[in-house]
Amino acid sequence: MSDKIYSYQQLYAFALNVFLKMGCSNEDATLATSVLLSADLRGIDSHGIARLVGYVRLWEAGRINATPNIQIVHETPSTAVVDGDKGLGLVVAPKAMQIAIEKAKQVGTGWVSVKNSNHFGIAGYHAMMAMSQDMIGMAMTNASALVAPTYAAEKMLGTNPIAVAIPAGKEAPFVADFATTTAANGKLEIAQRKNESIPTGWAQDAHGNASNDAHILKQGGALLPLGSEKELGSHKGYALGSIVDIFSGVLSGASFGPWAPPFPAYVPMPDNMPGEGLGHFLGAMRIDAFRPAEDFKSNMDLWLHRFRSAQPIAGQERVYVAGDIEREMEKQRMEKGIPLVDNIVQDLNALADKLAIPFS
Amino acid sequence: MSDKIYSYQQLYAFALNVFLKMGCSNEDATLATSVLLSADLRGIDSHGIARLVGYVRLWEAGRINATPNIQIVHETPSTAVVDGDKGLGLVVAPKAMQIAIEKAKQVGTGWVSVKNSNHFGIAGYHAMMAMSQDMIGMAMTNASALVAPTYAAEKMLGTNPIAVAIPAGKEAPFVADFATTTAANGKLEIAQRKNESIPTGWAQDAHGNASNDAHILKQGGALLPLGSEKELGSHKGYALGSIVDIFSGVLSGASFGPWAPPFPAYVPMPDNMPGEGLGHFLGAMRIDAFRPAEDFKSNMDLWLHRFRSAQPIAGQERVYVAGDIEREMEKQRMEKGIPLVDNIVQDLNALADKLAIPFS
Repeated sequence: MSDKIYSYQQLYAFALNVFLKMGCSNEDATLATSVLLSADLRGIDSHGIARLVGYVRLWEAGRINATPNIQIVHETPSTAVVDGDKGLGLVVAPKAMQIAIEKAKQVGTGWVSVKNSNHFGIAGYHAMMAMSQDMIGMAMTNASALVAPTYAAEKMLGTNPIAVAIPAGKEAPFVADFATTTAANGKLEIAQRKNESIPTGWAQDAHGNASNDAHILKQGGALLPLGSEKELGSHKGYALGSIVDIFSGVLSGASFGPWAPPFPAYVPMPDNMPGEGLGHFLGAMRIDAFRPAEDFKSNMDLWLHRFRSAQPIAGQERVYVAGDIEREMEKQRMEKGIPLVDNIVQDLNALADKLAIPFS
Repeated sequence: MSDKIYSYQQLYAFALNVFLKMGCSNEDATLATSVLLSADLRGIDSHGIARLVGYVRLWEAGRINATPNIQIVHETPSTAVVDGDKGLGLVVAPKAMQIAIEKAKQVGTGWVSVKNSNHFGIAGYHAMMAMSQDMIGMAMTNASALVAPTYAAEKMLGTNPIAVAIPAGKEAPFVADFATTTAANGKLEIAQRKNESIPTGWAQDAHGNASNDAHILKQGGALLPLGSEKELGSHKGYALGSIVDIFSGVLSGASFGPWAPPFPAYVPMPDNMPGEGLGHFLGAMRIDAFRPAEDFKSNMDLWLHRFRSAQPIAGQERVYVAGDIEREMEKQRMEKGIPLVDNIVQDLNALADKLAIPFS
């Protein structure tokens, strides 16, 4: 299986045309495309153009509104709740993040909880928006339930990612962006495509026993919270996923827990949903609301340099800081192109045919 | 080894007298005692009265100031940096949390980064202060380096805990409080006392190999971030510990990373410390800055009830929500007393003799 390589520009043009065909405004289509493709550039392949077909299906099913009226429904000087009006999360989330940034300019920090939204792409994109403003950015989202709490046999939480982006001076910044599970669902999808088993600790079967089957979620199994099992701290990963769900879902009035809306359009919406759509939580903290930005950045440079030059263990060349691997991938893929596996290429060709948009 | 049982009142009276003997004001001694003993009640034995001797030693070494001038040195409507003036973290942190709460009353949220402080007891106490105000509370702190980043052979981070307390209506609230490591250092201390080995995944030796030796940290070993190893997501636990260090240390102007001040008074302070003392980060978010508090609490009750009634795996009676086990422990220990192991009792008796304070 040799992957086909596409330039960023090729994939960008295609995705942009798809969003325009869905009826998005030029502004929204451009924003959605930038967010979507940032995942492909950064190597988070499960959240990039591979999901485009899924977004289109949700739009066809009437679950995504291409022309949403995104608005603040409640606010204080440092907070807001935003109603995404069933818009693309790729559009709703960066607009909500912009509101958080504006509030941080006024009162030091801004915190926006979002309801009635959809899948927002990679959390890191939204968090990173804050950095150019000399702010720390945070982003999280709930998602459809794939994860069993510690000691539970049921799927109750999404992979509920957390991203935190922290600017620095001369050193490359700190950008954490991770699912609150042991392994992101995208890693299972890769193992499924390669017909490989998965490491012990990633998933359990329907009875709660450890499973190495990459297909186990279709048989009543579940992903495991970060920590894998109680003795190794899975209750902490479960707590983190819970916090993301509550901040994103309960605080905004979105749906939550096992009632979070599913991403695949063929999966029916849960009965008795307690809120509207998917939820996100975005935050921005102005550095100089705490210390002069130059002092902070100088200390961050020291922090980053010290961690990057930490003594590695045998067999490893270096110690990474959060975001280093993705930054290097972004540079490489912008230059050399983005590889897509066969079945994604087929999906995109089929989508191109259906929408009468040129591809490849 | 049968533990001796003490009533909460006995231990409270003793700790209060110790803090008064150190020269703390009545108000500060009362606050410090309440924070300290809340750890014993909640079953976090490593952070309770077992640490009292350590605090006294730091005070004797001049590293803790019993009469600090705790003050805001920088602020905006939603933020502040507090200088703890080398005070007990047990006093500095709740005072900083109170500032966060006051700011949240004014502008929706309050965020306080603290420098020049010391060990603050259990993070959960400070986060829980927000709940009675219908606010979500958050608390974190950096700590002396015991943890190796993913792929690193060096101790670079503390166990850097995160606490998040979320109020509810009729259901008992959500209170997460956990070290960002696979296992808290207190769990190693318990294994050391019992001369037991520790599970694979908790610690590594000086070369980065997995170790089951509870004493390995004294031989150049390190605790592991939540996730234990790269394949099981340790880079996520490492990122979380980093975020806590940066929010608590770098944002406030405290020391950070491998330069965080050590808890044992006999360990010399690190050379070239980049900031002042230990750092904390406290946050409060007013529920009704997002939604009417009653709506939120009603949804939180639904969330909590659904998770608590999730189907357990075979061999487990129930699924817990963060804070359930500690809440039950608190009730039990308030009624039946707090067990202390032999060597802690000996430490406290020696301390009682030295300070001429009655004990037991």
